[in-house]
Amino acid sequence: MLLRMSTLFLRTLREDPADAEVPSHKLLARGGYVRRAAPGVYSWMPLGKMVLDNVADVIRAEMSRIGAQEVLLPALLPRELYEASGRWTEYGDLLFRLQDRKGADYLLGPTHEELFADLVKGEYSSYKDFPVFLYQIQEKFRDEARPRAGILRGREFHMKDSYSFDIDDEGLQRSYELHRDAYVRIFDQLGLDYAVVSATSGAMGGSLSEEFLAETPTGEDTFVRSTGSDYAANVEAVRVAAPPAVPVEGQPEAQVHHTPDTPTIDTLVEFMNNAGLGRSFTAADTLKNVLVKTRAPGEDEWQILGVGVPGDRDVDMKRLEAALDPHEVALLDEADFAANPFLVKGYVGPTALTQNKLRYLVDPRVAEGTRWVTGADQVDHHVVDLVCGRDFTPDGVVDAAEVREGDPAPDGQGTLYTARGIELGHVFQLGRKYADAAELDALGPDGKPKRVTMGSYGIGVSRVVAAIVEQSHDEKGIVWPRRVAPADVHVVGTGKGDQVATAVRLAEDLEKAGLRVLVDDRKGVSPGVKFTDAELLGVPTALIVGKGLDDGVLELRDRRSGERTEIALDSAVATVVEAAGREAADREAVSRV
Amino acid sequence: MLLRMSTLFLRTLREDPADAEVPSHKLLARGGYVRRAAPGVYSWMPLGKMVLDNVADVIRAEMSRIGAQEVLLPALLPRELYEASGRWTEYGDLLFRLQDRKGADYLLGPTHEELFADLVKGEYSSYKDFPVFLYQIQEKFRDEARPRAGILRGREFHMKDSYSFDIDDEGLQRSYELHRDAYVRIFDQLGLDYAVVSATSGAMGGSLSEEFLAETPTGEDTFVRSTGSDYAANVEAVRVAAPPAVPVEGQPEAQVHHTPDTPTIDTLVEFMNNAGLGRSFTAADTLKNVLVKTRAPGEDEWQILGVGVPGDRDVDMKRLEAALDPHEVALLDEADFAANPFLVKGYVGPTALTQNKLRYLVDPRVAEGTRWVTGADQVDHHVVDLVCGRDFTPDGVVDAAEVREGDPAPDGQGTLYTARGIELGHVFQLGRKYADAAELDALGPDGKPKRVTMGSYGIGVSRVVAAIVEQSHDEKGIVWPRRVAPADVHVVGTGKGDQVATAVRLAEDLEKAGLRVLVDDRKGVSPGVKFTDAELLGVPTALIVGKGLDDGVLELRDRRSGERTEIALDSAVATVVEAAGREAADREAVSRV
Repeated sequence: MLLRMSTLFLRTLREDPADAEVPSHKLLARGGYVRRAAPGVYSWMPLGKMVLDNVADVIRAEMSRIGAQEVLLPALLPRELYEASGRWTEYGDLLFRLQDRKGADYLLGPTHEELFADLVKGEYSSYKDFPVFLYQIQEKFRDEARPRAGILRGREFHMKDSYSFDIDDEGLQRSYELHRDAYVRIFDQLGLDYAVVSATSGAMGGSLSEEFLAETPTGEDTFVRSTGSDYAANVEAVRVAAPPAVPVEGQPEAQVHHTPDTPTIDTLVEFMNNAGLGRSFTAADTLKNVLVKTRAPGEDEWQILGVGVPGDRDVDMKRLEAALDPHEVALLDEADFAANPFLVKGYVGPTALTQNKLRYLVDPRVAEGTRWVTGADQVDHHVVDLVCGRDFTPDGVVDAAEVREGDPAPDGQGTLYTARGIELGHVFQLGRKYADAAELDALGPDGKPKRVTMGSYGIGVSRVVAAIVEQSHDEKGIVWPRRVAPADVHVVGTGKGDQVATAVRLAEDLEKAGLRVLVDDRKGVSPGVKFTDAELLGVPTALIVGKGLDDGVLELRDRRSGERTEIALDSAVATVVEAAGREAADREAVSRV
Repeated sequence: MLLRMSTLFLRTLREDPADAEVPSHKLLARGGYVRRAAPGVYSWMPLGKMVLDNVADVIRAEMSRIGAQEVLLPALLPRELYEASGRWTEYGDLLFRLQDRKGADYLLGPTHEELFADLVKGEYSSYKDFPVFLYQIQEKFRDEARPRAGILRGREFHMKDSYSFDIDDEGLQRSYELHRDAYVRIFDQLGLDYAVVSATSGAMGGSLSEEFLAETPTGEDTFVRSTGSDYAANVEAVRVAAPPAVPVEGQPEAQVHHTPDTPTIDTLVEFMNNAGLGRSFTAADTLKNVLVKTRAPGEDEWQILGVGVPGDRDVDMKRLEAALDPHEVALLDEADFAANPFLVKGYVGPTALTQNKLRYLVDPRVAEGTRWVTGADQVDHHVVDLVCGRDFTPDGVVDAAEVREGDPAPDGQGTLYTARGIELGHVFQLGRKYADAAELDALGPDGKPKRVTMGSYGIGVSRVVAAIVEQSHDEKGIVWPRRVAPADVHVVGTGKGDQVATAVRLAEDLEKAGLRVLVDDRKGVSPGVKFTDAELLGVPTALIVGKGLDDGVLELRDRRSGERTEIALDSAVATVVEAAGREAADREAVSRV
């Protein structure tokens, strides 16, 4: 079906929408691909729907290739299932909740782990049935506090979510890798520049997880990359390499010093350097102990936790929360100090914590045999040369210290720097959280029930469209990768003679030759406006039927390179198919796998 | 992609679900096409999703053929637009309403007139832009009081809704006819037996409208058809033909009679037949005046209305409400009688109504010159030979009397009978209701703004799937029309030898030949179970690879006719393509128009 600009439901805009901050929002709105219906809620116009479908086609082909089966679940979900998994409350304000006419509680699905687990439970019962991969492409709803950036973070958005079901951990690992590999192929085909980033779990529960982030300055997610390797991780997921253990033998005795007027690490370090101890100190030689309290899901009681980090770093609460998830984390209040008088504010040391059976976790840099200047558990006193593994034994290690640009990369190659990215997709080993909630079991070969283990794998389909624009545009407009472009070629007829009629005829011939064609057959519209629109819309190849027509000459323009080539009218169809068709054919081939 | 029963996410059921009442619900559930997620909310399993997509493909092709452009609007809609059109309240409990985290009101779209009008207003401004047809295939939400019958009447369902925009009534008429014709082609291709039924408007506002109803005993909608023609209409839309006017000259004078003990029409008729008036009476000779009150939208004041119908019929309140829409209709209460003492309960006649300036509408059979026995506006008195047009003049005609089987058809051919149907689609000349609410104008050729006029056209995509099953099944299962079937051929391998391997090989060859193939490659499943499943699933053609394989013989089964044919292994692919491929090729051709 030839797309004709004369009848296409499309009006381009010359001005950016007032609320648009990022390039994708500006350009998708100006190009008439989307229109805003409400905050964070968008309508997809004809060309936008085509791009969205093209992205979905690439995803479907790769999901099918790994044997995933497409289903379609409802958006309106009963509260009970999400109550059982705990997410009815865990999601907080992010969940759109509503009641039906009888007062029964429903939610609009933000993601569908619960219903998929329930569905598989209804159909499958034997280990022989597994693994199974199910997916859907469907609207999701999340009541974002600040919907922003157009369709990058909407409140109603399109998502591909798939779920794997296995009877053992090895199976889950295989299913996870199949999905991860499919995601690599999908994002490669979509022409995206992305990093695969180790992530933490957030509200999903479970263990191993990676995010696919498209690096752009406008990205909402901060992550770290290495200067020396492919290493990339969410800040929450950076694991600090522990230094090798040092023998404790022969290290000097710990000594308590009276250290008045040292309320901060800086003043403490200055004091120590002037204390005549025969060596110099930096903040990295001090051990800062931060007190929090934690609570396990479903429990009433809080437990005090000490977190020890080198004094040159703060505790990053997001990293701490991620490390302790699913436990809640809170700061201590006066009542906590009152109940534990051995905690001397400002002078808390490992000794009081460990001797009083409070949990004490330390940064990996606080390795066996390292020695520290730290609180001596009495006012105005610090202890020097307190040796880990000799004078105190932490209960374990926690990665909660802040991550800084220039830190060594955990893989030992290069140093870390901070990047911003858009989350395109997420692969996730959920484990048994949702299977437990649904009591999803399969009879094993021994006739005994085995709890199923799950993975979940999401791609933000609408967000991918925006991410592509973020990475692929210039000052004139969008530059679509051919595979997702609404057309392969944009034929532009300009002039008052036969140009428009010839443009339409050529467009029809190009379509017969297998290309997807947009033709600008508008009358009474100036060449300048048509060229500006073509650049804004961003179809990869433009064929200009203009003044040269009388001499049998047309112009071929490549949107990405800006290159312009004169071509002969007689052989125009073949030339355009050669220029725009090869990749188009590849696209077809892939989408039909 | 070969569909293999061994890995397909599908478990058929031998028992009907407990809550299933109608065949489509039973069979779609037993065949594993759908699963219930909540009352009136369903998940589409892999084969169900394919059927749903096949129906959508047929619809898309025909919408594209009439130049409709596909878009995709959100389900989450802001209250403001629906407040402006009045539907925020008009929809009542049928609307799912919710609030976001800031307390702003939203609804889940039950249909999208408002947002489409708003969208067109944002893009188009000149008469030259019109007409334009826009459509989407998308989830809709309606909080039905009694969701029933599986996916026939769900609370979340799939709908194709399109909208036409024209600058004048002639344009709307053309747009309407294009859509109506497209609907005829769609439902023909889907193999449905349906009637095109004149309908009233319901909550949509506007004038001309027709429904496409699939006649089945399980249908929720009652309509009337004619024994003598294609005439079909909703009961609300039946227009009674008025008899020719009779001259009033020479008719006997009206006479008031004392008629004690005649509380009912029957007793009145009996009394009259014994009153020695020299002729006999039936209930059809009496004129029954029913009093109601009506109120215009947005008004506070009620107005009393008298409705006169022949005494052998009751007033059908649904017909009356439809005829008076958008006015509200209510019964009188004691206060109304007290305020209008000339209304004598049980004896209200046309005289008191018309003399006291109350509105009085009559059935078309109460034509000029007809004479009636009716109330004399005093207790225990009736008047005989009260002549319409001489003794009283009604304010107009209203089609509110009940319609009965055997009534003459309005087109004069045959008589009416009652049928039940499932509403598949609805075409509707909305007029300017939503354009008024949105203030949607286009500049005319004279430079003056013209209000746009709209049509809306819906198809219940998921309901169509169920309607097909209602009309196309037998006691063994579903009998899919080939165009919507999840596969063209179901290859069944049964036996302990090479049968399954051969079935898979044949399935692969059939797929290469262009057919969509489901292959039963399950091991350890008896032939009986496989045959039962094949019949339940309803793929049009089955190829059985069984005992005859050793002799090079296979069996071809036609699901609809039950016919079984032995065919040779050597030429099996060609034979099956011949049997299953011709129509399959047609389907391809149509879906790619």
